[in-house]
Amino acid sequence: MKIKRVAIVGGTHGNELIGIELVKKFQRSPHLIQRSNFESCTLLANPKACQMIRRYVDEDLNRCFHQRDLADFNLSSYEAQRAKLINHMIGKNGQNPADLIIDLHTTTSNMGLTLILASKHPVNLQLAAHLVVHNPAVKVLSAAVDHPDAPYLDSISDFGFTIEVGAVAQGVLDAVLFQQTEALINSVLDYVEAYNQEELPPLKESLTLYQRTQTIEYPKDADGNIQAMIHPKLQFRDYQPLRFGDPMFLTFDHQEITYDGNEVIYPVFINEAAYYEKGVAMHVTQKVQERLTYSFN
Amino acid sequence: MKIKRVAIVGGTHGNELIGIELVKKFQRSPHLIQRSNFESCTLLANPKACQMIRRYVDEDLNRCFHQRDLADFNLSSYEAQRAKLINHMIGKNGQNPADLIIDLHTTTSNMGLTLILASKHPVNLQLAAHLVVHNPAVKVLSAAVDHPDAPYLDSISDFGFTIEVGAVAQGVLDAVLFQQTEALINSVLDYVEAYNQEELPPLKESLTLYQRTQTIEYPKDADGNIQAMIHPKLQFRDYQPLRFGDPMFLTFDHQEITYDGNEVIYPVFINEAAYYEKGVAMHVTQKVQERLTYSFN
Repeated sequence: MKIKRVAIVGGTHGNELIGIELVKKFQRSPHLIQRSNFESCTLLANPKACQMIRRYVDEDLNRCFHQRDLADFNLSSYEAQRAKLINHMIGKNGQNPADLIIDLHTTTSNMGLTLILASKHPVNLQLAAHLVVHNPAVKVLSAAVDHPDAPYLDSISDFGFTIEVGAVAQGVLDAVLFQQTEALINSVLDYVEAYNQEELPPLKESLTLYQRTQTIEYPKDADGNIQAMIHPKLQFRDYQPLRFGDPMFLTFDHQEITYDGNEVIYPVFINEAAYYEKGVAMHVTQKVQERLTYSFN
Repeated sequence: MKIKRVAIVGGTHGNELIGIELVKKFQRSPHLIQRSNFESCTLLANPKACQMIRRYVDEDLNRCFHQRDLADFNLSSYEAQRAKLINHMIGKNGQNPADLIIDLHTTTSNMGLTLILASKHPVNLQLAAHLVVHNPAVKVLSAAVDHPDAPYLDSISDFGFTIEVGAVAQGVLDAVLFQQTEALINSVLDYVEAYNQEELPPLKESLTLYQRTQTIEYPKDADGNIQAMIHPKLQFRDYQPLRFGDPMFLTFDHQEITYDGNEVIYPVFINEAAYYEKGVAMHVTQKVQERLTYSFN
């Protein structure tokens, strides 16, 4: 299957400025994202949140794309409306369906340049493998199991994925990450052009994938208040192995809390600002080698 | 004049978590801030914003303390009400006046441990000099001119100042900065105790002070949209000298914009998230040697 349309989306979270400014740049200069054999379009997903420089107005837009929610016309939040509209525009049965949605995000965690795959479709895995060869600093993350009904914006296209870059504070532009994200988008577009022309040789046999398994919450007291912070020795160490006995948290009274699991884990989204409201301190991943199969068009 | 009451304030901005968690800690363990010859109290200044993990609800609380605004009962925002209440509680003519307010803030700029003095009263300068001797990493910042009617919370006490620590993202706890801030508060309280006992020898003749002179805004287009980011070579370089020709901004099209002033300046609050809504890219300071005079009690 050829990729006929790519949508580049920014501002799904209104305080993640790099994606917002990249989308605005591409809207001013559309030639930058044009290629010979597919269409490109751009979208500011949550314009009201962007204007307020906030993650969301009523609720997290990037949790509003469950099929049942898109079909439920009783949902009345700003983001629920917006999700339906976006699905109507670029979703699979929409007016101008996008086969590939690139959703641009930033994180306060030190995740460098990360691809988060909406699915492990061979085309996505091939694309990810290509980008890693092109830039070995790129990390690839995937959900625990392929879920046919994910709540994320990128899940409404066949080959969607998220570009997640950090560490950068909410509401802040980081020029280096801006340029790296732009270069990564260019690589994706060049790849899609070559893929459509069937000009891509198989690159490698496997891909290092960080597979999400669970989340770890902050320690809390009986009233639900968090009691500890990410330990300085874990801060900014996303994708590094964490072993039994390694420090994880530091309580407000300076007590160390260590990791007590027997399995080596690879934490990501360590100390992400947006996850405090859910009490989530980090996501846990397993580092796996995913075998690649090459299926063209 | 002895210092009879110290107020430690956090959560003036609801997404600056270090001050909020320190105040909660001191509320759980009041003995930590007790000393022999003055009272200590704590205050979460903007509880509603803290709950929402946002800088403010309606407007910036830390701009609501002008005397004319405190006296104007027509102002109806949440923060305007809250400012009046705080002034009524711990202001100079309040129920339990605090002679010294320590207002705890964080910044996305790399300002390390900074004291921002509400005034250049000799007592404030002595305190600052003491803290710098105790910890040479501490920087001292002061407004351009002593203003009898500042809009800041710490200005409603005689010897108020702000502790501003960074770089840390909004909505994030950084364990190292948490501990450093707590240690700095301890030094302040120990100093006040010794000051009240007239046990402090003159420490030094002068103090390095960064004196705010102006702000620099982001370059903007005709529609008011920003056109550039902080240059990677300036990012996180708060308090470092900036000279004619040094890079300041990078446009979204990768053009470098350099500093074109002839005077050497020392920028601070470089790339502070909260200043984007005002279009402010950084504050400019001059580095000066302030002579100290020692006036006791």
